[in-house]
Formats: sequence, structure tokens, C-alpha cells
Amino acid sequence: MRERLLAAERIRPIEWEQGRLCLLDQRQLPQRETWLRFDEVDELVAALGEGVVRGSALQAIAAAYGVVLAAATHLAGGGDWRQAVLADMARLAALDPASASLGWALQRMRERVARLAADAPLDELLDEARAIHRSDREANLTMAQSGAELIRRHGQGAQRLFAQGEFGALAGGGFGTALGVVRAAQQDGLLERVYLGEGRPRSMGARLGAWELAAEGLPVSLCADAAAGHLMKSENLSWIVVGAERIAANGDLLAPLGTYGLAVLAMHHGVRFMVVAPASSIDLSLETGEDVVVEQSAGEAQALRAAHGLPESPSLEMYAPAYDVTPADLIDVIVTERGVVERPDAARLSSLVSRKRLH
Amino acid sequence: MRERLLAAERIRPIEWEQGRLCLLDQRQLPQRETWLRFDEVDELVAALGEGVVRGSALQAIAAAYGVVLAAATHLAGGGDWRQAVLADMARLAALDPASASLGWALQRMRERVARLAADAPLDELLDEARAIHRSDREANLTMAQSGAELIRRHGQGAQRLFAQGEFGALAGGGFGTALGVVRAAQQDGLLERVYLGEGRPRSMGARLGAWELAAEGLPVSLCADAAAGHLMKSENLSWIVVGAERIAANGDLLAPLGTYGLAVLAMHHGVRFMVVAPASSIDLSLETGEDVVVEQSAGEAQALRAAHGLPESPSLEMYAPAYDVTPADLIDVIVTERGVVERPDAARLSSLVSRKRLH
Repeated sequence: MRERLLAAERIRPIEWEQGRLCLLDQRQLPQRETWLRFDEVDELVAALGEGVVRGSALQAIAAAYGVVLAAATHLAGGGDWRQAVLADMARLAALDPASASLGWALQRMRERVARLAADAPLDELLDEARAIHRSDREANLTMAQSGAELIRRHGQGAQRLFAQGEFGALAGGGFGTALGVVRAAQQDGLLERVYLGEGRPRSMGARLGAWELAAEGLPVSLCADAAAGHLMKSENLSWIVVGAERIAANGDLLAPLGTYGLAVLAMHHGVRFMVVAPASSIDLSLETGEDVVVEQSAGEAQALRAAHGLPESPSLEMYAPAYDVTPADLIDVIVTERGVVERPDAARLSSLVSRKRLH
Repeated sequence: MRERLLAAERIRPIEWEQGRLCLLDQRQLPQRETWLRFDEVDELVAALGEGVVRGSALQAIAAAYGVVLAAATHLAGGGDWRQAVLADMARLAALDPASASLGWALQRMRERVARLAADAPLDELLDEARAIHRSDREANLTMAQSGAELIRRHGQGAQRLFAQGEFGALAGGGFGTALGVVRAAQQDGLLERVYLGEGRPRSMGARLGAWELAAEGLPVSLCADAAAGHLMKSENLSWIVVGAERIAANGDLLAPLGTYGLAVLAMHHGVRFMVVAPASSIDLSLETGEDVVVEQSAGEAQALRAAHGLPESPSLEMYAPAYDVTPADLIDVIVTERGVVERPDAARLSSLVSRKRLH
């Protein structure tokens, strides 16, 4: 299966080619497929700041390769190149100080910079960046297989799935988390059709997810957010497959706006609900999802107002948080690269997190 | 209450002034408030065909006044004016042959044309058109009061309601159906805030409903479709107030896309669910909502594809029916101008329909 997934792969969001970092410009999708090439870290910092890629996992991988670009420049320039590289890393880190994956990737690069061999420092840094990239891809491949196995075990033949488009290959090093499971289901003959939610008002997920799956020839339907209830009543779905921003210690899920509503509809219609996310999403310091204060998002509100051409007015507010919280008791299973947790609760998640990584 | 509603009225979508029909151009809302004035039926037919107003009730009222315009022209022109007016009525009827309200309004006008007095035919036709207009306004006022009374009876003090924006004053002769109840709740001190659904992908409801309530100073929040679950979990709503396309004999509801999902979410969160619609929406020839084949809408699909800039592609379909079906057992109450039906079923609806009209 792993081989078939690799063979079918067409959408790669990031590549390292002949000393340059290549990124698919996600701002131009789905209209145009444009690759940007970077051989200077300055250009990369600017492009990442402008939102050339989305998804914190992909940004972290790009930043790791950015350290290689920085080292190439400063090694050639003479002077204290280590100091100069560390300064560039600080600029990369400042792109998203709240991102755990970005912090983790840059910490790995920082440790490698500290103990570089004198003769081939660039090769070693590139190896480290590639390892970070590979580890994300491998985790996604592992989750994809585990998710497809669950779909096989609980159903028969080709099935109808519903997934969130923002958790695709374009959000990380490849294959995607939720969409990785959809791809694996397709490879295993388990997919009749996948319905993708819009994920409005932001909607990047719909655009990118629909584009990447359609580009690989999967049978995709983009489902209007308001159509989810009718879809579940009418089309005999077997699974809802979503991603995560964070997972609390008790299994509560913090995820993009609309996930909670999907989970309630899924329970009402007897559709199974699967969360696909790397183990690093599990935050044991967060006891339950109810501890999270879900705030309104100025960006989402702005998008919502603009979508309807509504003027600013004191008596007209916008209600659009960026995410919502789904209680663990609406979740059938959480799939991570370290293992699968059915009917998640605090004991089962804690046991998963204490396991060693499988790869 | 009726007097207070009339006194607070600011948004009127249709007026007859000094021999001319005035319509608020709904295509330009919410950006611009533009009134169009018609003294020729030809111009009116063209404008209605271009979607100057939406809502079949308002279109029917406009058509009735259109018959007055036609008669004015043909009476002045000599010849067989009755024949010429009937020809114009056929053009008005052809604007939406499936609309029950349009058919009913033109039938009333046709009967009046047949028995006009010789001396003041125009005055009599105008009286008939005004009666059609008034009957819609009166029905809405009656429903608004009944709905607010239910809200008062089941709750305490100012409450948070959720409503569908397309069922406002702009959809008929005034006040609105679902939004009429919201207006009456406001007049009775029962409204803390009203959340309006977007009603995407078409979304005219969101734009127009948010505009008309904000213009009257009501505290309105436009709620992203995907935020409905989080809203019901977090904001302690007391009622969801929706409108109807049709109501089956058993109480099943055919309504704009998303209504069914709202009803499931409402049940899960213990929020009451109210349908507000004239008795003419009840179709006793339709046994249950399950007899309706809900088809995908090409217009909605087109709007959805365009909203996300997605290209035409054989492997990328759009899932967006224009409406959905809500089973009667998710509905707490149906409010009509002939009376209120709690826990609707076939016996209670049949008894309502056989009652005489109250006005």
C-alpha cells in the first residue's frame, strides 16, 4: 500500500532541487499551478510571510530547508557564519511564534548547526532538513494506512466519505492527514466518492483540497456547508474524516469551524467520525476542550462581511470563530502515527502518548 | 402590538404612489437603496424577469399592481382593453408558472376584470390589488404576534433567536414571516439578539435579512453556516425561527438548504424550532416530505463553484441542492395566520387547513 500511495502521488507541495527550495504557490491555486524557487533565505522569509504556503507542518519543513539556504549564503560570505545563520533562524521562527511544528523543526536545525562537521556542513544540514521532511511524510503515510484499515474493517466495498479539504497534501510534507486516509482508501478500492466540506468563511481548505484530489483523479464533490445535513440523510456516508488543530488530554478536539456541527450530524445519522492528526497535536497540558476560550476571529469576520457585501454597521455583527470544540464522546476514533485510539478518553490518550514513536 | 409593529416599520419593499408602482431594487442591496418606479406594465414585466424583487409573495403583489398599470394603458388606448389586459396578465403569469401565490393573485385580478363597473374600472382594480397586498401584510402581522406569544410563553425576558434572513419584509408585502416574529419579539422586549444564517450558496437571504433588520436597529449577528453548531452550544439560544417553501400534510418541511441541519442541531442542544409560513404553504396533496425528490440545483452549483474559483473538471462535482426536507418530528411548532400547530402531525394540520380564515 505504501508503494501504491507513493506511485500515485502527483501533488507535492515542496521539493529540494539542485540547491534550491521549490514551493508550489498556494495563493494562486486552484487557478494556476506556479512553482516558486528560492536560493536566498531572505526571499523565502518574505514569501512565507506573504502566505505562499499554508499549514504549519509545511511551513516548518520549508523553514528547515531555509536554514540550509541561509548556511549556503553565509558560508560563502566568510565571517561568523554560525552567528549569521542563527539570526536568520530567529527571523524564520518569528513567522509564527505560536506554531509548535515550526519551533520543533528549528530546534532540530539549531542543534545540528551546533555540532556540524567542519568539512561538509551543508550536506549535513540538508540531511537534517530532509529528515524533518521525511518524518512528516512517513507519519502521514502511516496514518493513511491505519485510517484505511479502519474503513475496511467497519464497512464493505467502495464507500462514501466526507473529509475536510484543508488537511491535504498541501498542508504538510505530502499525502495529507485526513486526505491521506481518503487517498489510501482510494488505493484500497474503498472509495466510491469523497465529499469535501467548504470550511467557510476562510475556505482555503475547500479550494486546495478539491483541487489536489481532483488533480489525482479521485471522485470528489464539494459540499456546501449548509448541505451537510441533507448529504448525511440522503447519501449513506460511512465516515466523516477530519483533522485537528489540537487534541485535549481527554480527547476533546479543537478543529476548524464547522467540525463540531459535523460531529453532531454524524452521530444523529449513525455516520462514524474519525480524527486524523499527528501525536504532536495531543496537548496533555490541556485537560479538556472546555478549557479553551473560542474567540471570534477578526479575519473570519472580515471574510464573512466581504462575502456578502455587507457594510460596517454598529447593529450588524459577524459571528465567525476560527475553530470550534468537539467533545470526545462524539469521536469514534483518533488516528495518529503512533497508533489508533478508539473511543478516546484520558487514559487511552495518555497511554498512546507515552508509547515510543514507531519510526 | 400591531400598532407598535406598524409604527416601527421602516423597510417597505413595495408601494403604490400617485398612479405608479414603486419597488425597492433588491439586486442593489445591501450596497444601495434604490427605488424603481413603473407606470408601464411592459417595464414591470422586464424588471421582474431580471429579478428586481425576490420572494414569490412579493412578486405576486407586484403582478397584481401590474394589472392596474396594464388597464390604465389600455383604457386610454381604446379598442378591446379587456383583451389587451388579459394578454398582459398572461405575460405576468409566465414569469413563474410554478408559483402558487402568483397564480392566486392573478386569478383574483382576472375575476375582478370580468365584473368591473363601467364607470370607475381603474379604482376597482386598484382596490383589488391593494386588498391582495393588505392580506399578505395582515397575515404576516398575525403570524408575528402568534410567534412572539410562543416565545414569551416558553421563555423569560430578552432571548437569543436564530432566524433565516430570506423570510423578511423584502420577501412579501411587509414585516416578513420568520423575521416578522423576530420584529414582534423585539417590540415585546423579548429579543436580546438575533443571529441570521447565511443561507449559502445563494445567500440572498443573509444579505437582505441582515440589511433590513440592521436598518431598523435590531441587534443582528450574521452567523457563518458552519458556525451554527458552535453557536447553539455556546450562546444559549431559545428558538430557531425558519420559513417554508412547502409543508407536507404530515408536517414535514421543505425549506431552503441548511434548514434540516439546523433542526438536527436544535434538537441536540434543546433549542426550540418554529416554522412561520402562511397556511397556503401547506400542501395536503403531498403526504410526506419523503415524497419530494430533492434535486441538485444548477444555479446553486454554479454559485458554489464560482465562490471558490474552481474550474470545471470531470472529477470535481458540486453538491448543493436548493432546499432540504426536515421531518415533522424535529419541529416544535408551525405558526400560520390561521392558527398555531404544536407538535405538527397530519390530524392537526388537516384541522388547521379546514378552519375558516381569521381575517
